[in-house]
Amino acid sequence: MILDKINGPEDIKKLNKQELDVLSQEIRDFLLEKISTIGGHLASNLGVVELTMAIYLAFDLPKDKVVWDVGHQSYTHKILSGRKAAFDELRQFGGISGFPKRKESPCDAFDTGHSSTSISAGLGLAQARDVLGEDHYVVSVIGDGALTGGMAYEALNNAARMEKNFIIILNDNNMSISENVGGMSTYLSSIRTGEGYLDLKKHVTNVLSRVPVVGDSIIEKISRTKNGIKQLLIPGMLFENMGITYLGPIDGHNTKALTRAFREAKKLNHTVLVHVITQKGKGYSFAEKNPSRFHGVEPFDILTGESKKEKKNPSYTDVFSKTICRLAEADEKIVAVTAAMPDGTGLKRFAKQFPNRFFDVGIAEQHAVTSAAGMAAGGLKPVVAVYSSFLQRGFDQVLHDVCIQNLPVVFAVDRAGLVGSDGETHQGIFDYSFLTAVPSMSVFAPKNLWELMDGMEFALSYGAPIAVRYPRGEAYQGLKEFRSPIEFGKGEMLYKEKDIALLAVGSMVSTGEHVREKLKADGWNCTLANGRFIKPFDKELVDSLAKDHWLMVTMEENVLQGGYGLNITNYIHENYPHIKVVNIALPDSYVEHGNVSLLRKGLGIDSDSIIWRLKKEYLDLERQDTEWKHYKDETGKEKKE
Amino acid sequence: MILDKINGPEDIKKLNKQELDVLSQEIRDFLLEKISTIGGHLASNLGVVELTMAIYLAFDLPKDKVVWDVGHQSYTHKILSGRKAAFDELRQFGGISGFPKRKESPCDAFDTGHSSTSISAGLGLAQARDVLGEDHYVVSVIGDGALTGGMAYEALNNAARMEKNFIIILNDNNMSISENVGGMSTYLSSIRTGEGYLDLKKHVTNVLSRVPVVGDSIIEKISRTKNGIKQLLIPGMLFENMGITYLGPIDGHNTKALTRAFREAKKLNHTVLVHVITQKGKGYSFAEKNPSRFHGVEPFDILTGESKKEKKNPSYTDVFSKTICRLAEADEKIVAVTAAMPDGTGLKRFAKQFPNRFFDVGIAEQHAVTSAAGMAAGGLKPVVAVYSSFLQRGFDQVLHDVCIQNLPVVFAVDRAGLVGSDGETHQGIFDYSFLTAVPSMSVFAPKNLWELMDGMEFALSYGAPIAVRYPRGEAYQGLKEFRSPIEFGKGEMLYKEKDIALLAVGSMVSTGEHVREKLKADGWNCTLANGRFIKPFDKELVDSLAKDHWLMVTMEENVLQGGYGLNITNYIHENYPHIKVVNIALPDSYVEHGNVSLLRKGLGIDSDSIIWRLKKEYLDLERQDTEWKHYKDETGKEKKE
Repeated sequence: MILDKINGPEDIKKLNKQELDVLSQEIRDFLLEKISTIGGHLASNLGVVELTMAIYLAFDLPKDKVVWDVGHQSYTHKILSGRKAAFDELRQFGGISGFPKRKESPCDAFDTGHSSTSISAGLGLAQARDVLGEDHYVVSVIGDGALTGGMAYEALNNAARMEKNFIIILNDNNMSISENVGGMSTYLSSIRTGEGYLDLKKHVTNVLSRVPVVGDSIIEKISRTKNGIKQLLIPGMLFENMGITYLGPIDGHNTKALTRAFREAKKLNHTVLVHVITQKGKGYSFAEKNPSRFHGVEPFDILTGESKKEKKNPSYTDVFSKTICRLAEADEKIVAVTAAMPDGTGLKRFAKQFPNRFFDVGIAEQHAVTSAAGMAAGGLKPVVAVYSSFLQRGFDQVLHDVCIQNLPVVFAVDRAGLVGSDGETHQGIFDYSFLTAVPSMSVFAPKNLWELMDGMEFALSYGAPIAVRYPRGEAYQGLKEFRSPIEFGKGEMLYKEKDIALLAVGSMVSTGEHVREKLKADGWNCTLANGRFIKPFDKELVDSLAKDHWLMVTMEENVLQGGYGLNITNYIHENYPHIKVVNIALPDSYVEHGNVSLLRKGLGIDSDSIIWRLKKEYLDLERQDTEWKHYKDETGKEKKE
Repeated sequence: MILDKINGPEDIKKLNKQELDVLSQEIRDFLLEKISTIGGHLASNLGVVELTMAIYLAFDLPKDKVVWDVGHQSYTHKILSGRKAAFDELRQFGGISGFPKRKESPCDAFDTGHSSTSISAGLGLAQARDVLGEDHYVVSVIGDGALTGGMAYEALNNAARMEKNFIIILNDNNMSISENVGGMSTYLSSIRTGEGYLDLKKHVTNVLSRVPVVGDSIIEKISRTKNGIKQLLIPGMLFENMGITYLGPIDGHNTKALTRAFREAKKLNHTVLVHVITQKGKGYSFAEKNPSRFHGVEPFDILTGESKKEKKNPSYTDVFSKTICRLAEADEKIVAVTAAMPDGTGLKRFAKQFPNRFFDVGIAEQHAVTSAAGMAAGGLKPVVAVYSSFLQRGFDQVLHDVCIQNLPVVFAVDRAGLVGSDGETHQGIFDYSFLTAVPSMSVFAPKNLWELMDGMEFALSYGAPIAVRYPRGEAYQGLKEFRSPIEFGKGEMLYKEKDIALLAVGSMVSTGEHVREKLKADGWNCTLANGRFIKPFDKELVDSLAKDHWLMVTMEENVLQGGYGLNITNYIHENYPHIKVVNIALPDSYVEHGNVSLLRKGLGIDSDSIIWRLKKEYLDLERQDTEWKHYKDETGKEKKE
C-alpha cells in the first residue's frame, strides 16, 4: 500500500506520478471503508482527494497554513498529515474530530465548523505573517456553497487589498449541503459550463457592434445592458472586478494541473483565487448520484449504499416537517425559510408541496432572518427553520430586525441541545441564553412528539416572535397521556406530589421522568412539572411548586449562564428563600464530539448523574439530619415536618 | 415657502419643475437649521435630498414600500411624508426617532438602524407581496458603505432570483461613516470616475488583440488575466454577473434624471439596481469638505461649522484611544481592528501612528472578529474596537472562531449601556448577556477613567478572549483614590460598612457611590463594592459582602436576563439564603431614544429611583419591623442586631 508510506505531511512529496495516482484511489477506498463503518461526512471528502494531495505537493505544511472552510472535508488532509491510524475513532468520544482542530495537529491552522469563515481566518493569518515579518503561505479553501454566506464576501472585499500573497482555493462542486442557490451560483455555473467563455471573442464582438455611442441617455444604457452584456462572460470577471486575481477553472481531479495552478498562485504578490471544479462523491457512484444523501452518513453498506441503521421512530425534524405542511395547507400565509438546509430541517416536503411559499436562501442565516422579518411586515407568517448553532449567525437580525418591530416570525430551532459527533461548533446549547435576552422574544420547548405539533400550531397563531426549540434525533413518545392545550407562558403539572419538585424543560422532561421514577423507587416524594415556556417562565407554576416542596430542581439542556434555571432561582430567592434550588444545566464550557448519551453522562445531565448529585448535595444529608426538614409553609411561617 | 405645501406623501407630486428646485433648497435649509439646533445626522441627509424627492415623485407612498438602510438618512423622507412639524423633537425623549419607525408613519415600511439590512428586508416585503398577490413596488435604498456588509451580499445573491420587480437604489457617496474600504469600493470608484468605461470600445479591442487563443494552459490564462482584463470595465458588470440588472450611474442631485431612472426601473420584471452618485453633505460647504465630522453632530454654528458644545472632559473613547496607542508603542504584536469606525471607536490615532498594524474592514463585524481570531492564531494581539450593539453582528464569530480556540482577542466594547438619541437599535444593553453565555470569554467593566486604562493593559496581557466594556460619553473621574491593581476575576471593595451592600459594575459604580451617599445621609450603613469582572464574577467578594449585610443590591446597565445580577442572586441563594437581593438592571424591553439621564430615570437605574425602590421594598419595612433584622453571621447562626 502506498498509503502506508504516508505518515506525515512531507511523505506525499516522495511519491512519483504513478504512485500519486494509486494513492488517490487508496485514499478513496480508505475513506469509504472507514465512513461506511462508523459514519461521517462522505461526499465532500471524496470530492477533494486530489485537491488536498495537490495542496500537500505545492505547499509545505505545517509551515504554510491551510484553513478549511466548514472543515468536514478535511479527512484527506487528516490522512496526509499523519492521522490515518486515528480514523477508527473518528468523531467518537475521545477520538479525533471530524473537523480541523489546532490542538489535534500543527497542520490544522484554524478550527472551523460553521460555513464561510475560512477567508476571514486565512486573511487574519496572512496579516499576522506580514506584521510579524514571517515568510510562509496562507491558503483558504472554500466551497461554492460557503460563498453564499455574507461573511465570505466581507472577507473577499478585504482580501482584495492584500499586497502580499494570499491564496483562496474555490472548491466548486455546485453544491452546498443541498443544491446551491442564488446569483453567485448561476455565475459560477456559467463559468463551469463554459457558456459565453469559449466563445468569448465572438460574443464580445457581437456585443460591441450593438453598443450605441455611449451617451448620457438612460435608455441607451438600458438597451446596452439588455443587448448582451450578460453574455460577455470572462471567467472570474466578478472576482477580477473586486480586485482579486482569478486562475481557472481547473479540473479538480487532476492532481498535476492542480499542483501547477497552486505553484503559479504562489508567485503573485496579492490575493489570488484558484477556481477548482470538483465533483462531490467522486469515485463512489451512489454518492456521485446523490451527494446530498451522502453528505453526512450513518454506517452504510458499500455495495448497496443502503444505511445499516434500522428504521427508527420519527425524529423531531420529521414531526416538524409534517406539522408545518399540515398547518400550511390550512393557512396560505404560512411560508418557510431555510438557509441551505431543506433536507436537514425537514422543509424538503414543504418545498415540494408549496414551492412558491418556500425560500432557500443559501448559507445565509442573516438574510434568512431579516427577509423573514420583511415577509412578516408584509403580512405573511414566516417560519425560519434553522439549527440552533447556526441561528447564532442571525443573532443581531433576531434582535434588531424581528423583535424590535415585534414581528410574527416563528423560529423552528432544530438540533437544539447536544448534537453528538459534530462536536463543539454544532452543539445547540446556547440558544436559551441568546434568545431569552432579546426583548419581545418568547421561547417554547416541547417535551415530546405531540407537544412539538401543538407548539408549532400555537406558535403560528401567536402573532409575535417566538422560538420553538427541539433536539436532534428521535422524538420522545413518552408522557403521551399529558397533552394539555398550550397556553402562552404556562407550563403543565405532570405528577404532583411533595418534598422534591423537578421543573424541567424540553428534552429534560423525559430525563425528569426517569429521575422521578428512580427517586420514587428509593422512597422520595417527587413532583414533575414541564416548564414548556423558557420565556416567559410560568410564575404560577413555580408558586404552586413552592408549596409542599423544600427542594426545587430545574433541568435544561443549555448552558446555565443566561438559561432557564437562573430565572427560577431568582424568583425563588425573592419569594421562597427557604427552598433549596439545584440548577441542572450544562457547564460553562464547549462540549466536544461524541455519542450524546456519553456526553450527557459526562456533563452530569443524565438521570443517574442528577440523582447522584441530588443525593450527595441534599438527600443523604436530609435523611441524616432532621434539622434540614424545616421549611416554611405558604404563609412564610416555619414549620416542621 | 414651498415646504409649507408639503404635508403628506402626495403633495410633492403637485409641484412643477421650478418649485421642485426651490423645494430641494428649502429642505436643505430646514435640515441645517434643525440639526444645527438640536443635533442629529447631517451629511448623509444633505446628500439624499433629491434622491428622496425623486422616490416620492416616481413611487406612491405608502402603497409602495421604501426601506432605508441604516435609516439615519431618512430625514427628507420624514419631511416629505408629513412629519416636518415634529422635527423640533427629533431624537428627543418622546419625540420622533432619527430612524424609520413603522409605528411612526405608514410611510415607514421597515425599521432600520444597523447597516446592510435593507435589501433583505425589502426582498422579504417583495416576496410577501408576490405570495399574497398584491401589486405595489418595493424599493431598498442602500449606501455603498453598507454594501461592504456581508448581509447585503447575501441579499443580492437572493435578489438575483426575483421574477417580479424589485428595485435597489445604490446611494453611492464613496463613504460609509468614514472613508470606504475594500474591493467593492475600488470597483464602484472606477465606475464613478468613468475609468475604463468611457473608453470601453478601445479597451475591449485592446484586450482582445492581446488574448491568445483560449487553451488549457494556465500560463495563458494568467497572461490573459494580467494583460488587461481588469481594464475591461463595463458599469455594473459585477451586478450583471450576479444576475441583477444595472442602471447607472445617475447624477444623484438631478431630480429629473433620478425620477426618470426610477420610472425605467419600475418597468422590469426582476431585480434592478439603480446606481446613484451623491455627495455627502451636499450644499453645506463644511459638511462637503468634512463629511465624516458632520456625520452625527451636536448643535453647531451654521456660519462657522463649529460645535456649540463646550469642550468636555475626555470620553471613555478618548481614554481607550490614548491607552491603546501607548500600549502598542511598547508591544509590536498589538494590532487594532475596526468595522468602519476609526473615528467613533477612537482608533484614528492608532491608524496614524501604526498604519501597518491597523485594519479597517468596512461595515463587516463578522469579518472583523474572525480575521482578528486569525491574527491571534498567527501570533498577534488583536484589539477589536466595536460598539456594543454592532458586536451583536459578530456573536457567532466570537463564540465559534475566537472562544472555541481560546484565542487572545481583546474586545474593546464601546457605547455599552444606554447611548441616548440613537434609540432602540443602538442601545448597548445586551452585551453582558450574549458575551457571558460564551465559554472562555471574560468580561471586564471599568468604574472610571483610570480603570479603563488599567483594564486595557490587563486585557492585552491576559492571553485569552476578554471584553472590556465601557459606556458612551465622558469618562468618570470620581473614585480616583481607588486604583487597586487589576487581578483576574477579582473586584474591589470601595467603602466597607455593614447592613446594605451595593455591588455595582461598570458605569453603575458611580451610581452606587451616589446611592451610598444619599442612604448614608438618611442614616443607613452602606457598603460599596466594584465588581469589575462580570465574568467570572468575584465569589470571594460576594462572600465577604455576605458578612454583616442583610441586603445585597447588584447594579448593572444591562438587561437583567443573562446579565450580572442573576449570577449573584444564584450564588447568594445557594450560600446565604437569608440575604435579600435586589437586582438593579434594565427591564426586558427595548429602550427608545432620548437623553440618557431621562432614560435612566425612566428605567429606574438612576440613584433616586434605586433609593426609592430600596426604601419601598425593604428599608421602610425594615425601620418599622424589627423582625427583619434577623440575619445570620458567618457561622450560619442567626443573630439579632
